[in-house]
Amino acid sequence: MTAHSAAAAGVKRERILDAAEKIFARDGFFAAKVADVAKDAGVADGTIYLYFKSKDDLLISLFESRMERVIGTLAAAIATVPTARGKLLALIRTYVGLVKDQPSTAEIMTVELRQSSKFMKEYDNPKFAELLRLIAGIVSDGQAAGELGDAIPPAIAARMIFGVLDELATAWLLSRDAGSPGRAAPRGKKFDIVRAADWVGELVTHGLSRRSHA
Amino acid sequence: MTAHSAAAAGVKRERILDAAEKIFARDGFFAAKVADVAKDAGVADGTIYLYFKSKDDLLISLFESRMERVIGTLAAAIATVPTARGKLLALIRTYVGLVKDQPSTAEIMTVELRQSSKFMKEYDNPKFAELLRLIAGIVSDGQAAGELGDAIPPAIAARMIFGVLDELATAWLLSRDAGSPGRAAPRGKKFDIVRAADWVGELVTHGLSRRSHA
Repeated sequence: MTAHSAAAAGVKRERILDAAEKIFARDGFFAAKVADVAKDAGVADGTIYLYFKSKDDLLISLFESRMERVIGTLAAAIATVPTARGKLLALIRTYVGLVKDQPSTAEIMTVELRQSSKFMKEYDNPKFAELLRLIAGIVSDGQAAGELGDAIPPAIAARMIFGVLDELATAWLLSRDAGSPGRAAPRGKKFDIVRAADWVGELVTHGLSRRSHA
Repeated sequence: MTAHSAAAAGVKRERILDAAEKIFARDGFFAAKVADVAKDAGVADGTIYLYFKSKDDLLISLFESRMERVIGTLAAAIATVPTARGKLLALIRTYVGLVKDQPSTAEIMTVELRQSSKFMKEYDNPKFAELLRLIAGIVSDGQAAGELGDAIPPAIAARMIFGVLDELATAWLLSRDAGSPGRAAPRGKKFDIVRAADWVGELVTHGLSRRSHA
């Protein structure tokens, strides 16, 4: 493959991923048709299968591509912050900001992804492990510096922080504005997810802080 | 319908739910066949549809039945505990104990349930709302008594606590023992989820506690 055709293949792969993101968000992963992704990407149906083995593989590749962006954005947001507390607050605010600004992407990465049995049970998920390591690293550094208490292992703390963020993101994404069209039944009222970032920060930083009486 | 046949119908409905729990846990919700549920319950295929409209409806009914038990167990566990901190710790330990003792049920209620698009997007989920209200009530009482800080709204605190518990349950359920048969790829090592309950308790009670410097 020449450098030119490799670049062209990369561009086509990205175009298919962008189309998959759009179609999965519109129809849901389960109902989404690979043919509709192909149509939106402007390629023949069979072309998709030159790049991706199956619809599950397309979802997993989409997840990896978007997760890589998320991790890059989070890493940049915490890079110059000096304290563990500050890094945790910056990470939480940035994560919530991404959910708010890119709700379609966020919905695929929370709600739709879990509809793939293959993703949930068979996929090793290295990008998710990388996100957890990024969070655990903040906690671990903060514990080593004596800024955070060391009662909770960093890997478990990372899981808990992700759990809080993921639940609030899911709750917010599945909730509906009063006049929102589309989905059948409204499920709770939209809350202010940016405000919620402060509450997550409050719970997490105080929950992990060092205490004399612990 | 006579009292006798109403009771018999109730028993049959329960038998179908027990069978669904077994088959969904064994095959996964998506791959599970209603015919296999019928066979395991010892009823004709068509009988299932006298009680449940669809496979999604069967899953939702199963969820409601099990969630009712979970809420009853949690409510009993916190009933006689005097403080909000004590109630939160009791609720967390009891929840984690249920996950550990009934992993098949827990897997359906975390992993499998999310594979139903209908459940995630269209179902109003009154039982889940009831669980959140139970947790929010503890937080709200603790705030009113001045035992907990009031920076975080009780409904949001409940979501965050559920998020932590749900993420740890999912991580534990999807992780595999070294010698575990069945699933394709191992996904992290099993951790001690009972120990993890202490860490959740630590994060949550300290995260929500009243602070003079807040």
